[in-house]
Amino acid sequence: MEKKELIYEGKGKKIFATESENLFIAQFKDDLTAFNALKKGSESGKGELNCKISAKLFQLLEQNGIKTHMKSVIAHDEMIVEKVSIIPIEVVVRNIATGSLSKRLGIPDGTELPFVLVEFYYKDDSLGDPLINDEHALILTIATVEQMAILREKGRAVNAVLRPFFDNLGLNLVDFKLEFGVTSQGEILLADEISPDSCRFWDKESGEKLDKDRFRQDLGNVKLGYEEVLKRIETVL
Amino acid sequence: MEKKELIYEGKGKKIFATESENLFIAQFKDDLTAFNALKKGSESGKGELNCKISAKLFQLLEQNGIKTHMKSVIAHDEMIVEKVSIIPIEVVVRNIATGSLSKRLGIPDGTELPFVLVEFYYKDDSLGDPLINDEHALILTIATVEQMAILREKGRAVNAVLRPFFDNLGLNLVDFKLEFGVTSQGEILLADEISPDSCRFWDKESGEKLDKDRFRQDLGNVKLGYEEVLKRIETVL
Repeated sequence: MEKKELIYEGKGKKIFATESENLFIAQFKDDLTAFNALKKGSESGKGELNCKISAKLFQLLEQNGIKTHMKSVIAHDEMIVEKVSIIPIEVVVRNIATGSLSKRLGIPDGTELPFVLVEFYYKDDSLGDPLINDEHALILTIATVEQMAILREKGRAVNAVLRPFFDNLGLNLVDFKLEFGVTSQGEILLADEISPDSCRFWDKESGEKLDKDRFRQDLGNVKLGYEEVLKRIETVL
Repeated sequence: MEKKELIYEGKGKKIFATESENLFIAQFKDDLTAFNALKKGSESGKGELNCKISAKLFQLLEQNGIKTHMKSVIAHDEMIVEKVSIIPIEVVVRNIATGSLSKRLGIPDGTELPFVLVEFYYKDDSLGDPLINDEHALILTIATVEQMAILREKGRAVNAVLRPFFDNLGLNLVDFKLEFGVTSQGEILLADEISPDSCRFWDKESGEKLDKDRFRQDLGNVKLGYEEVLKRIETVL
């Protein structure tokens, strides 16, 4: 299968058409962005790492009954995915307060939350991806009542698989961002990626950050962090 | 009944203790603030207008089964209120998109919303009163699941009384902010005020703004706007 025309280019991936009407090719980029793309960078080999990590995690989730858009990996940084229409909502699942949550609500960084928090952000760069509630989504006509319930439920289901999985690998899954898409049949699939670009991983022993916060906070060794996450995943998958 | 020590001073009111353990005196101030108090001003007689308008509207709501903290008006700018512990959540009810909602979500100013939107903001000046969802309120331990449902329901109930009431007076009730308090018995009462400081009123014919937006947007004749709202209310109450 070959890449045809570029359908969409996001901050972390390019999406290409293929000869099949229902399939796209997602190519993972080396680009790094943060703070709504105010900070930009690049890390050679990052796309490959994210592609590999996402592929392993999508596979794990599929094994646990959570459907994803991934079909197969075809190159070091490319996977074939089902064609979906992305719901413009970032589903953020949080186990521990940090980053924007701590800043916004004054909750001390590192506070374990009393329950798994699911937040929705309207995926719109020009508006800075604002926090929304369910009613805002209906007013914006970006999702139905039923779809919002599914997004919330799937967000929690992904966390229920991934948090213990990473805990066993010595990593604290602090929070993560998911995106979902709708197939031509109306089915909602987990889409986008699950990688150190979209998750926060803290080493359980040292507290070391092994994710995009290394880039956001100029901690250095960005790629080493991503490599460490993949290495640990590969010990079991 | 006389004012004893000052218990609390907010942007629009002072709250005083009284000789009765369960009663406070609320004194309405002439001060005007906007944009999280970055803009400040004063309008002589504004406190009196807000006290009178709030008193009329609290009475109307009581007649419609919505309990408020107001006991009686004792001076031109003072009312006796029941002692409550204020829940630090601003309940914002919107019929038409304008102001921060339009800006935040890119909804054109003046768009009639497809349903009554209820939003919650964490009342914390140092954080800039951020938007929250129900789960944030639980994490901040500022309200229970049950209380959040009551706040939402009471917000809608107030709108169901006030929107048609003002419509009959030729005023479009665009949106408003409510605050609630808990009595020593655990009952939730509508508290704070309902006035042109906390509501947006647009004249149905001319579209003229008769509320604090006259101050926010430097439209002039702030007090005339408030007087017009009171004048119309007094034609029926």
